[in-house]
Amino acid sequence: MSNPDETPGGSGSSARRERGGRGARRSKRQAQTTPSAPYIVRKIPFYDLLDEETLAKIEDRADQILEEIGIEFRDDAEVLRLWREAGADIDGERVRFPRGLPKSIIAASVSPQFTQHARNPARSVEIGGKNLVFVPAYGPPFVRDMENGRRYASLEDFENFVKLAYLSPSLHHSGGTVCEPVDIPVNKRHLDMVYAHMRYSDKPFMGSVTAPERAEDTVEMCRILFGKDFVETNCVVTNLINMNSPLVLDATMSGALRVYAAANQCTIVTPFIISGAMGPVTLAGALAQSHAEALAAIALTQLVRPGAPVIYGNFLSSMSLLSGAPTMGMPEPALGYHAIGQLARRIGVPLRCGGSLTASKIADGQAMQESSDSLMPAIQGGANFMLHSAGWLEGGLVMGYEKFVMDADHLMMMHRYLEGIAFDDNGFAMDAFREVGPGNHFLGCAHTMANYETAFVNPKLTDSESFEQWVENGEKDIQHRACDLWKSMLASYEAPEIDPGVDEALKAFVAERKAGMADAWY
Amino acid sequence: MSNPDETPGGSGSSARRERGGRGARRSKRQAQTTPSAPYIVRKIPFYDLLDEETLAKIEDRADQILEEIGIEFRDDAEVLRLWREAGADIDGERVRFPRGLPKSIIAASVSPQFTQHARNPARSVEIGGKNLVFVPAYGPPFVRDMENGRRYASLEDFENFVKLAYLSPSLHHSGGTVCEPVDIPVNKRHLDMVYAHMRYSDKPFMGSVTAPERAEDTVEMCRILFGKDFVETNCVVTNLINMNSPLVLDATMSGALRVYAAANQCTIVTPFIISGAMGPVTLAGALAQSHAEALAAIALTQLVRPGAPVIYGNFLSSMSLLSGAPTMGMPEPALGYHAIGQLARRIGVPLRCGGSLTASKIADGQAMQESSDSLMPAIQGGANFMLHSAGWLEGGLVMGYEKFVMDADHLMMMHRYLEGIAFDDNGFAMDAFREVGPGNHFLGCAHTMANYETAFVNPKLTDSESFEQWVENGEKDIQHRACDLWKSMLASYEAPEIDPGVDEALKAFVAERKAGMADAWY
Repeated sequence: MSNPDETPGGSGSSARRERGGRGARRSKRQAQTTPSAPYIVRKIPFYDLLDEETLAKIEDRADQILEEIGIEFRDDAEVLRLWREAGADIDGERVRFPRGLPKSIIAASVSPQFTQHARNPARSVEIGGKNLVFVPAYGPPFVRDMENGRRYASLEDFENFVKLAYLSPSLHHSGGTVCEPVDIPVNKRHLDMVYAHMRYSDKPFMGSVTAPERAEDTVEMCRILFGKDFVETNCVVTNLINMNSPLVLDATMSGALRVYAAANQCTIVTPFIISGAMGPVTLAGALAQSHAEALAAIALTQLVRPGAPVIYGNFLSSMSLLSGAPTMGMPEPALGYHAIGQLARRIGVPLRCGGSLTASKIADGQAMQESSDSLMPAIQGGANFMLHSAGWLEGGLVMGYEKFVMDADHLMMMHRYLEGIAFDDNGFAMDAFREVGPGNHFLGCAHTMANYETAFVNPKLTDSESFEQWVENGEKDIQHRACDLWKSMLASYEAPEIDPGVDEALKAFVAERKAGMADAWY
Repeated sequence: MSNPDETPGGSGSSARRERGGRGARRSKRQAQTTPSAPYIVRKIPFYDLLDEETLAKIEDRADQILEEIGIEFRDDAEVLRLWREAGADIDGERVRFPRGLPKSIIAASVSPQFTQHARNPARSVEIGGKNLVFVPAYGPPFVRDMENGRRYASLEDFENFVKLAYLSPSLHHSGGTVCEPVDIPVNKRHLDMVYAHMRYSDKPFMGSVTAPERAEDTVEMCRILFGKDFVETNCVVTNLINMNSPLVLDATMSGALRVYAAANQCTIVTPFIISGAMGPVTLAGALAQSHAEALAAIALTQLVRPGAPVIYGNFLSSMSLLSGAPTMGMPEPALGYHAIGQLARRIGVPLRCGGSLTASKIADGQAMQESSDSLMPAIQGGANFMLHSAGWLEGGLVMGYEKFVMDADHLMMMHRYLEGIAFDDNGFAMDAFREVGPGNHFLGCAHTMANYETAFVNPKLTDSESFEQWVENGEKDIQHRACDLWKSMLASYEAPEIDPGVDEALKAFVAERKAGMADAWY
């Protein structure tokens, strides 16, 4: 970890220059929105589903897939060159790996834990080990809210979700493509997205991966925000590199991977497996495949630049074999999350899982049941970077306003869960038993009063009022309460300070890059 | 385990007498409603939250509570006599326990696993060990459905929930007071409830505990259904004995406990702790208290009759300290479930946890999030008897028709979760990788076809259809789909066969007992 004071261009330095009213308002805002810690350090053990022998068997099958079938790296001669040089067997675009090769490359240089810096040093996060970072959902082309229904996402929606994540203490990260701003040309929108994360939040964020040159733009904007030297030696952006499962990495993804790894920035390499489509319908095979793909892609980042920060990604989903539709929050991927956590720890690479997943169209009972059944096993399995923690609906097609704040509220409970149980004298409360005795209540006793503020998590959205109060308050279900909440949050939003010179430079970069391009819409 | 053929009076024997149309229809119905197994044998490990040292510390504090503060057994001289004889220290109604006394009584005679027989032997359940039995919610005075809203429960509602549980393959048990039939006098309704379980279902069930004489009636009806000799040596009914936490057991409960234990029937002794009211606000203390109360009550059953079947109960809830209202599905009890599973296994007593808990008034996102966050940790922690698995709303005040079938659907997924992952050759699917290769899909490959039927759990209520299909189908949330489902289930219900002589005898007993009582309404 570097000294937070080193972070250049961030609000840390500009804050020190402020005096009077603006600074005071800013302090107040930060007090309201800064969680007690910028990320979670878990105090509960991992849930280890599998024994040593079974884990070794999965690793063996992954090695067999890599050795016998191999992986295709499409349209990227540089990747083939790197693998040839490392000792892999190259047959056209198919790369086959001698047993143990990817693993030994990984062991030589991957960091099990690293810092992703935020422009506000107080928001920098530790990725790996016992740490957990909650990150908003990524990728939906649509948004939904209760009043306007489902519609294509716009840049305004994008900025709204950046603001909501900034205002949510349970979210540690601003995310990446929190929704696709489809009102902006495809070749330009990455500039607006990266700028929005930099300007409307001071939490860490993700970059663009949709083309190598857009990855370059992301890195360039990071250099403006954080300083060129800082970026060279520190991770300031994470980036989602999805495999084209099964067993393919295409040039768009490998190109972006190479840009970020070369710039010492983090890639999350993610086998994307909907069992039955991109992988076998049986979980053991899907796990072996996922591990094989992850090994190859993680190792590739280290061939590009040894020591480049990298995260072991995975996306496991089942499907309805009747309709071919992906299903979410099902028991099969829940079991998979437990297992994949063990596999990632065995090779010492930080783990990404997702998140609050659901196939439901709206934030109803199905949505929250599936989200819980997906989130909790991933937490227990040891996820370090929880993508899709908030907002996800309809299998990832939709970012939901109500769902976002409902998930964020749920994440506060998971914060508490991960704190575990305090077994100290205050925790055991022997004096309370002596004071209260049999048959009486603990409501007013000294121990209850002393622990009043911190005893229980206080969710904002879940209701425990009496039936009569609930009726008086309009018999609202949680979706309606969530709708009230996100609107009041956005109404109260104030942007974090930024160095005006840095902001100008970012805007100038965006304008200059846009000026050099014709609009492309696909 | 006894031979199922021994079960007298059950449908097992009557089935053998049937021929022709009735029998054929019955076989068809059973095929539709009988799950593959009458209970779950878990294939995944327990999630052990705490280390040996911490567990020993909790046990030590529980011993300290029992030794120093003790437990009050109110208005039950026989209980005080039993404890005096066992060597406890009696001070008025307060009983203090020499260190290790309850534990040594438990170790001498409690069974870690036993069979609760159903009148249909194919429905008998194993309680304890790696086995898990899902049981409907217990106790709500109100019911709710989408069309008629919230109202006091009636005997018709009671019978409906018995029928729905009978028709739900994921529920292994008919439950007990699935709702309070408040249209029947208080002193008579236990007769109708027990009869309904016996007549409208053939799954195992629970008895009445609201007065010792009602417990006697329950046992008497069991003797009619199962035969007197069978009941003397086999468990045919489970019964919920709640502590009056903190540290009190009243005469109603201890009286019912003594009736059931003496009749060799199962009691679930349950410390009922809403932290802040019936226990301290810190979880370590609540766990020590819960363990202390459980130790004393479990030991008491063994003083009444050594070897009487008994279940280690617990009910842990947090509360809103602002309003005093209980909260459900919160992280604190989730942690508690993990811990209490370890404590129960250390003394070798089957564990009851609950279930699909929520404070929500309706089956919305909150309800299902809280239910999942409550159910999954209890499953992982090793619950053997999961009370409140289906139907619970509003902190237990309401039994919900939609919630019931939504929970039952969710339990099917938990069935699958508990099966774990198969790491055999079919599971690893190496031939599928060879057949499909990089970049292609697995939809039509031989391995997918061979596993088509069993690959994934197939929930009835959660939707994974396309957005367009969902719109065409009326944009229903899961509650509306659930409403359609429970109505169609009740419409299709046919009662399981029962020996007509046994049925007559049960009806005669109920009529005779009712004739001897004036109606009591409170």
